[in-house]
Amino acid sequence: MASVKRLYKADSNLGNPLNTNFDVDFVIDYRFATTGKAEAEAQFVKLIESLNNVGLATEVRNGDNCAVLIFVKIASDQHLKAEVYRSRVQDWLYGVRAAAPEKQMQKNLKDEPVTQAERLRLVYLLITKPKNEGGAGITPKSGEWKGVESVFALHDNTFNKAWIKELSSKYWLMAEDFNVIKDRFGEKIAYYFSFLQSYFLFLTFPAIFGFCAWILLGQFSPIYAVVQSLWGIVFVEYWKKQEIDLAVQWGVRGVSKIQHKRPAFKHESIVKDPITGEDIKVYSPMKRLARQLLQVPFAITVAAVLGSLIAGCFAIEIFISEVYDGPFKSYLTFLPTVILTTVMPTLSTLLTGFASKLTDLENYETVDAHEAAMIQKVFVLNFVTSYLPIFLTAFVYVPFAQIIVPHLDVFQLAVKPFAESEKQMEAPKAGFQINPDRLKKQIIYFTVTAQIVNFALEVVMPYVKRKVFVKVKEVKAERAAKRGGTSSPTADDHPEESEFLARVRSEAELGNYDVTGDFREMIVQFGYLSLFSVIWPLVPVSFLINNWIELRGDALKIALETQRPVPWRADSIGPWIDCLGFLAWLGSLTSAALIYLFSGDGLGPEGSPWNIKGWGLLLAMFFSEHIYLAVKLGVRNALSKVDSPGMQKERGERFLVRKQYLAESMGQEEAEKAATGGIAAGEKISRSTLEYAATLGGNGTPEERFWQRQPGQQETIAAGRKYIQKKAAPTESKDTESKKEL
Amino acid sequence: MASVKRLYKADSNLGNPLNTNFDVDFVIDYRFATTGKAEAEAQFVKLIESLNNVGLATEVRNGDNCAVLIFVKIASDQHLKAEVYRSRVQDWLYGVRAAAPEKQMQKNLKDEPVTQAERLRLVYLLITKPKNEGGAGITPKSGEWKGVESVFALHDNTFNKAWIKELSSKYWLMAEDFNVIKDRFGEKIAYYFSFLQSYFLFLTFPAIFGFCAWILLGQFSPIYAVVQSLWGIVFVEYWKKQEIDLAVQWGVRGVSKIQHKRPAFKHESIVKDPITGEDIKVYSPMKRLARQLLQVPFAITVAAVLGSLIAGCFAIEIFISEVYDGPFKSYLTFLPTVILTTVMPTLSTLLTGFASKLTDLENYETVDAHEAAMIQKVFVLNFVTSYLPIFLTAFVYVPFAQIIVPHLDVFQLAVKPFAESEKQMEAPKAGFQINPDRLKKQIIYFTVTAQIVNFALEVVMPYVKRKVFVKVKEVKAERAAKRGGTSSPTADDHPEESEFLARVRSEAELGNYDVTGDFREMIVQFGYLSLFSVIWPLVPVSFLINNWIELRGDALKIALETQRPVPWRADSIGPWIDCLGFLAWLGSLTSAALIYLFSGDGLGPEGSPWNIKGWGLLLAMFFSEHIYLAVKLGVRNALSKVDSPGMQKERGERFLVRKQYLAESMGQEEAEKAATGGIAAGEKISRSTLEYAATLGGNGTPEERFWQRQPGQQETIAAGRKYIQKKAAPTESKDTESKKEL
Repeated sequence: MASVKRLYKADSNLGNPLNTNFDVDFVIDYRFATTGKAEAEAQFVKLIESLNNVGLATEVRNGDNCAVLIFVKIASDQHLKAEVYRSRVQDWLYGVRAAAPEKQMQKNLKDEPVTQAERLRLVYLLITKPKNEGGAGITPKSGEWKGVESVFALHDNTFNKAWIKELSSKYWLMAEDFNVIKDRFGEKIAYYFSFLQSYFLFLTFPAIFGFCAWILLGQFSPIYAVVQSLWGIVFVEYWKKQEIDLAVQWGVRGVSKIQHKRPAFKHESIVKDPITGEDIKVYSPMKRLARQLLQVPFAITVAAVLGSLIAGCFAIEIFISEVYDGPFKSYLTFLPTVILTTVMPTLSTLLTGFASKLTDLENYETVDAHEAAMIQKVFVLNFVTSYLPIFLTAFVYVPFAQIIVPHLDVFQLAVKPFAESEKQMEAPKAGFQINPDRLKKQIIYFTVTAQIVNFALEVVMPYVKRKVFVKVKEVKAERAAKRGGTSSPTADDHPEESEFLARVRSEAELGNYDVTGDFREMIVQFGYLSLFSVIWPLVPVSFLINNWIELRGDALKIALETQRPVPWRADSIGPWIDCLGFLAWLGSLTSAALIYLFSGDGLGPEGSPWNIKGWGLLLAMFFSEHIYLAVKLGVRNALSKVDSPGMQKERGERFLVRKQYLAESMGQEEAEKAATGGIAAGEKISRSTLEYAATLGGNGTPEERFWQRQPGQQETIAAGRKYIQKKAAPTESKDTESKKEL
Repeated sequence: MASVKRLYKADSNLGNPLNTNFDVDFVIDYRFATTGKAEAEAQFVKLIESLNNVGLATEVRNGDNCAVLIFVKIASDQHLKAEVYRSRVQDWLYGVRAAAPEKQMQKNLKDEPVTQAERLRLVYLLITKPKNEGGAGITPKSGEWKGVESVFALHDNTFNKAWIKELSSKYWLMAEDFNVIKDRFGEKIAYYFSFLQSYFLFLTFPAIFGFCAWILLGQFSPIYAVVQSLWGIVFVEYWKKQEIDLAVQWGVRGVSKIQHKRPAFKHESIVKDPITGEDIKVYSPMKRLARQLLQVPFAITVAAVLGSLIAGCFAIEIFISEVYDGPFKSYLTFLPTVILTTVMPTLSTLLTGFASKLTDLENYETVDAHEAAMIQKVFVLNFVTSYLPIFLTAFVYVPFAQIIVPHLDVFQLAVKPFAESEKQMEAPKAGFQINPDRLKKQIIYFTVTAQIVNFALEVVMPYVKRKVFVKVKEVKAERAAKRGGTSSPTADDHPEESEFLARVRSEAELGNYDVTGDFREMIVQFGYLSLFSVIWPLVPVSFLINNWIELRGDALKIALETQRPVPWRADSIGPWIDCLGFLAWLGSLTSAALIYLFSGDGLGPEGSPWNIKGWGLLLAMFFSEHIYLAVKLGVRNALSKVDSPGMQKERGERFLVRKQYLAESMGQEEAEKAATGGIAAGEKISRSTLEYAATLGGNGTPEERFWQRQPGQQETIAAGRKYIQKKAAPTESKDTESKKEL
């Protein structure tokens, strides 16, 4: 296999039409199926013009199902350079770069070549930024640009092939792999991969330990719980440090301060900034706060709706499996699962839609704020859907089964049609034994089965779908061709381009990649680990395996199944880190509770889990939580002491700036001093300085007279000597005298 | 009374010898009572020389009990300016100042006059900084400079008088008052006063509310607890924001990054910094961590030692007051108090000494780190001494009295000598009623009596002591004079200076002001409020009154009873804020517990406080804590939304720097664009740019050919039109056709 490095670096100009992108930066997929011809044309012209106006060259080609593909590249090298330089200066102004960029544009660009990610990002901004900020102001799918279906960059197949090969051929990724990702797909995605990577590496420990625990300690082992939650603390704190470190290494520290305005933002009024004099579009924060408070009812609704659904199905399942013993029992057991799998997804999509509506309502100025708010709500949704079932089993079913089961008769109607006699549906009034395995079974389902299913849905499914889709298209095309339909888009493709265009057309059909979705998955997974893994210590093992595949799968997804993502920058994984912290903290509570409830063959301390002592349970949780918080503090403290490459880099850069500035402001030799440890040694005072006073003679202010009494060093020393002479000797004697007197 | 402002501004050159300081910056009190004459002289000469070497002018005069007073001022105005400028540049380098100081020294100094605090700070640094950093390296009381008793600045009496008058004449201080304090005594002390001030203002609310609660709700009211702890959250979060804001307004934001090296720091090895090439003295952090872990046993010891002492006295007291009923009971009741008041102070001073030893052992590089570590330990000490007694009463005595009291017979020996019969000392085996008032009494003692006593010790006592001391000295002096002892220091004072020198000599005798002590007081006070004020809602009222006096008292202390403090800078109140947070958080636990335990006339829910339900108690605490944490998060969030003058200032400065830089780097007009909202609009591409491709003709790379197919805007538009024409019309018909086919 050829040197991976070389393949990585390989750019697309390899002649081979499947690989070349003809220098295209972005493709705009403009559709006019629904619009009238005249309007479509007018809008198209407008589009081309506004693109050219911001210095973008355009080519147009035919697209599938009444669309044209507009190929965009930045018109002149000069223009690109200007853009790059401006953005770098802006970075510096916002404190993203420590060192001010060289004032000579060319030099700066030579020192720091433009990466693909940087180029694409800037071009994309040129296309989408509002006019007043110097962009073409094209907002896909919204406003006057409804016609613009998507604005996407073209995949670099040569690179993608090499990349996938590389990833699947090594056990874990190195720093340079992330650099490659960052230079191709932007920091935001690089962050995802590097997070997934560290998470994967960290998992090895609990996986091994969990396996041993599974063999030696069995489930609900306090030792495992302690180790696991300690691990959780270390991981979260480590990542907090690591993400800053990466930001510095990638030179994007604080990039989140450079906010992209949301086109959808509606401002109430425009205020002149008192100092900067900038016009700021404002929306009263109080109003927003009020709307944000809607999240509380939202969360409650979510919990209520999904909760009742889950609880309901759960109850039915218990009723059928534990109470009912008529015919078809084996089939009926699946009834609740069926209900869940059909109703749940629709419900959650519904709620997600509602959440995004809510977020729009909150009307944030910037994209980041908007995203963050959305993530919060999504997290709540996922929290309920993913963890509630287990909470129900662990903290409702097991402790209170005795009380609940008898009342489950309400669900008789669910099975009435099948039961022969009332008896079959009667709950045993007493002596009902709960089934302690249920919990474990559930965990295994969520942490193994679900993961696999999920992966299938995520990677395999779309692949198949796509293949089918392509086939259908071909068939259609053939038919059209048979009927000599000139309307086939490929008709007037230039032979040299045809393959290329075919590729572009198929890429135009792809969905776009959403990194938050992948993040969500990982966070939820971490949740299972920290909340419930005491129930079944093999959880981390399953995750370890899953994540190795997950990482490659996601890479595959990006390379083959989605349009090339816009390479956005980021300086952290954003609000997800808080979710992690929250889950780790909650874990300290649940683990303690679970252990207390189930310690001893899945039954409570008194052998029967449902009459445990409340205060004991609470005490266990109370201590575990506060120990957790204390340890967390300690770990954070310890980690903060450790130096890291990123910090070193930062220090280094700051130092350089310092010296340079000082060199300018106060000759070289001074600079040396001042830069290293501050104030330089004061120059020795010439006698003259001290004696100027003497010249004044007896006259002058009292101050002058005071300072002239000992005009020079010699005089001062002499005077001092005199005093000491006089004192030092008689001291003792005098003291003794005074003693005598007293 | 003359305009306060003027008095504030008044500098000391008023001729009146009591007010003038003869331009003296610092006085060095050099004592040689214990050293031999020769050595004393040599050291003295060395002292003078090293002072002159760093550009300080010196005068020497006679001091009390074998000491000479060395008067120091910066030799030349030029030299001062250089120092000021260097320090300002350094500030900028460390990011303390947003805007780079004008490169022309003179201009910068004109724009920003040197404050007294700045001048004194720099001179003090000149005197004390190690030689290699350009100072004279004089370390009072340590190393070769054991002889140097103290290095102190002289009080500005005119200002002090005006200041005290001002403070005592207004109800609360304004921003300008703090500015004055900052310019005279430095930011660190200004922070203390401004903290005390905000605390005082915030107290008004709980004071009023508490008073109402006391009348309407009585003690242990949940409502009061909720309101009070909400108040606590708001106060702590507010201050966190406020202290940053002040730092920005005072231009010291991030000043804590400029660390002063500890002379006492012992380094293991010297490492060259990989990047900066600076020599760094390092001490292995692991070793330090190991030593820091000693704090755990330390804390335990403290708790154990003081705890057992307190518990012991407590038990004896109970025994005597509740069990014993022989003669002298009334007197014996004081026995424990006597023990406490005698043993406790000695013990805690002992432990404090131990703590400082421990801190030295931890061997920090910088003064700040050292201080922070010390504060931690001091906090632990104070926590035990201040709160443990109440904890004992509330959570041990009241709930478990029934169990404990019978076992108190062990203390019989304490009273044996007085008792007539065994009976008098026998604990009632049963039916013992605990005394619910005890708790309230204790609180009142700690929050009223103790505060007053404390104030007396702090302000009145030293004043008296000083007066006495002066008297004694005079008497001695007279005696000496009578015996014609030439050894009286005042003997050869120049008449013009004599009064001034007398003042200096007395100031030399004063102790120096320690702001951390005052902080400690306030934090401990806040603790009582947040931990126990549910017991007696009048607590905040008492504190409100106390703090009004406290603030003035502290000012008085600084002005009259201590040497003028060195005006250090600071950008926060340091680790104290964490202590505040901790106490507020702990309050959420204790308040809940207290209410649960005592709700209903100081007795438990079942009427008798000692058989409460454990789980109920824990549940109450559990909820209260987590609600607390949630609310805290919310409040922090809400506050972060609010804009503040400090932030505005910062933004403004940053904006100016931006514009200025851009103006330099890319003409004015560009700057406008780039500064407001980043990248400027790309210039319209001339047709030539687009057409360069055409010139190439059919040859050239595939890319070139691709981009030349539609050389200009017109061509592109035309092509697009064609496609649309062809498609838009037939679309429907074709679709229907294909439908037919299927």
